[in-house]
Amino acid sequence: MHPDQPSLRWDGEAIVTLDQRALPHERRLLRLTTVDDVIAAITTLAVRGAPSIGLAGALGVVLSAYAHCSPGTGDTGWEAVRADARRLASARPTAVNLAWAVDRVLTKLTDGPDAVLAEATVMIDEDRSVNRQMVDHAVRAVLDRCPQRSLRILTHCNTGRLATAAVGTALGTILALAEAGKVTEVLVDETRPLLQGARLTAWELAEADVPHRVCVDSAAAAAMSQGLVDCVLVGADRITARGDVANKIGTYALAIAAAHHGIPFIVVAPESSWDRSLADGRDIVIEERDADEVTSYGGIRTTPLGTRAYNPAFDVTPASLISAIVSEHGVHSPSEVTA
Amino acid sequence: MHPDQPSLRWDGEAIVTLDQRALPHERRLLRLTTVDDVIAAITTLAVRGAPSIGLAGALGVVLSAYAHCSPGTGDTGWEAVRADARRLASARPTAVNLAWAVDRVLTKLTDGPDAVLAEATVMIDEDRSVNRQMVDHAVRAVLDRCPQRSLRILTHCNTGRLATAAVGTALGTILALAEAGKVTEVLVDETRPLLQGARLTAWELAEADVPHRVCVDSAAAAAMSQGLVDCVLVGADRITARGDVANKIGTYALAIAAAHHGIPFIVVAPESSWDRSLADGRDIVIEERDADEVTSYGGIRTTPLGTRAYNPAFDVTPASLISAIVSEHGVHSPSEVTA
Repeated sequence: MHPDQPSLRWDGEAIVTLDQRALPHERRLLRLTTVDDVIAAITTLAVRGAPSIGLAGALGVVLSAYAHCSPGTGDTGWEAVRADARRLASARPTAVNLAWAVDRVLTKLTDGPDAVLAEATVMIDEDRSVNRQMVDHAVRAVLDRCPQRSLRILTHCNTGRLATAAVGTALGTILALAEAGKVTEVLVDETRPLLQGARLTAWELAEADVPHRVCVDSAAAAAMSQGLVDCVLVGADRITARGDVANKIGTYALAIAAAHHGIPFIVVAPESSWDRSLADGRDIVIEERDADEVTSYGGIRTTPLGTRAYNPAFDVTPASLISAIVSEHGVHSPSEVTA
Repeated sequence: MHPDQPSLRWDGEAIVTLDQRALPHERRLLRLTTVDDVIAAITTLAVRGAPSIGLAGALGVVLSAYAHCSPGTGDTGWEAVRADARRLASARPTAVNLAWAVDRVLTKLTDGPDAVLAEATVMIDEDRSVNRQMVDHAVRAVLDRCPQRSLRILTHCNTGRLATAAVGTALGTILALAEAGKVTEVLVDETRPLLQGARLTAWELAEADVPHRVCVDSAAAAAMSQGLVDCVLVGADRITARGDVANKIGTYALAIAAAHHGIPFIVVAPESSWDRSLADGRDIVIEERDADEVTSYGGIRTTPLGTRAYNPAFDVTPASLISAIVSEHGVHSPSEVTA
């Protein structure tokens, strides 16, 4: 898959996507032809990143609609699709984009499978334009807060083109800043347990030829104390009405450390990541994943046999620790958000 | 090696120690017979933990003394031993215990190899009594600060019997608290990059049958926000006159998060970890280790080829973030320390 190609697309009959589990060592394409394929890809993180799993969910509904609805099937087919949609929407619980995207294409179901596909296609196109607007706002938000001529930026997890169907959120912003000659170095948290930073973000930065170093997650605070970080940029999986942000585990620790050092902490995420039905971040359902992710890596066990793990996939950063939340609509400062 | 046996000992001709690189999967004994063996064991972390590397360094001088000094060799032999001692003392730069221990046995050199061995043996015995006194003080320091009936304790890296010749510092304290029925659960940071928490601390806790879970380092702050942590206990590699503490990378991030949540943050380390020649922690030399430790995991490469890393092995936590520093002499609160 070429850098200019989206990491997720519809080939006329199936979803084609890069298998993110195989990166950075192998560029393996997956072709998902059934709802079960899509659910498996989402739960195993072959497809990941809040915007991407939203689009994969929407295209999963398309697959279901073509499987169950032909002219005249009516109610029976629709019910089957709605059941599939519920399974897709609950494949992962924390990112709100998934349920949002599935619900949106479902509104076209009674117009037939072609209408469902048309809506999903619109959403993929929108993801691109939304992404561009969001990055423009985020670049301005960073430059407003960081008067340095050239920046050292720290980021966590992967929020680039692998996490969206376009250029990415936080990483898209970093790439745009680098193109504008504003980036000295990117420090990339490796992002245990699944190492999306080490595997995916480093891969995207190398591809774009942006200077970067990977560090263990726990070294980020030390880097801040040594003056190696001017700004922290991350994505989001769900944002509550008052601006509390659920994101990849480790984000909260970074936000506390950034606040301690007076370093701007900026969240970049589309409007579809906002869930205004929740006020308080403590109400967000946090997915707890298998202990194996912590007790082993790449099939190699690190702990003694039988060791248990605490493995929340996400944490919640309260609005009070966030300098700015940027979407395609512009920049919210937490004080505006909480007002 | 039996749980009641020290992890490092002198067998009459050589140093015998557990190879900590092979744990938890294999209990492999190393027999170190030359100074080069000792230096290699220290630099590759086969032997690790500030008190242990101090004792290994002292016994390294013993090996050198027997190799170079026989009756009548005089100055020539002594110079060879002093040169070995300098190499031993600089095998790792951050833990002050190494240079301290090497210098201490060296004072006996002119009395001959047997005197050097006798001093090293005294130091191993002292490590045991110092360890017991330190743990007693630390147990009291924890119980004074945590009125809960039973505690959830978070720890980082390995500070148990693998890091000393006795029961350990922070982990020794946790085991003593558990024996007294005061521990509900220990949360163990896996401690990237070399996973001393996942590999070694989990192994020691399982051996002692203390309930525990391993987590990725970046999840510690989330655990604190969820009320899963009553107290944080860590060791130290060097402590300055005012109480700034160099310890395994990630300690500083934990201390910031603990302060943010109002959770006691307690350092347990022997007097030999204090370096009163330095006031400010920023003057401590921090070892930066090979990028490979970060760019691979258990021998599996995780990043794209050519990826660079930021890999400081330690960070510095300022005294202002530390609730108490406990040694065999008692409990210092940072305010006393800085007074």
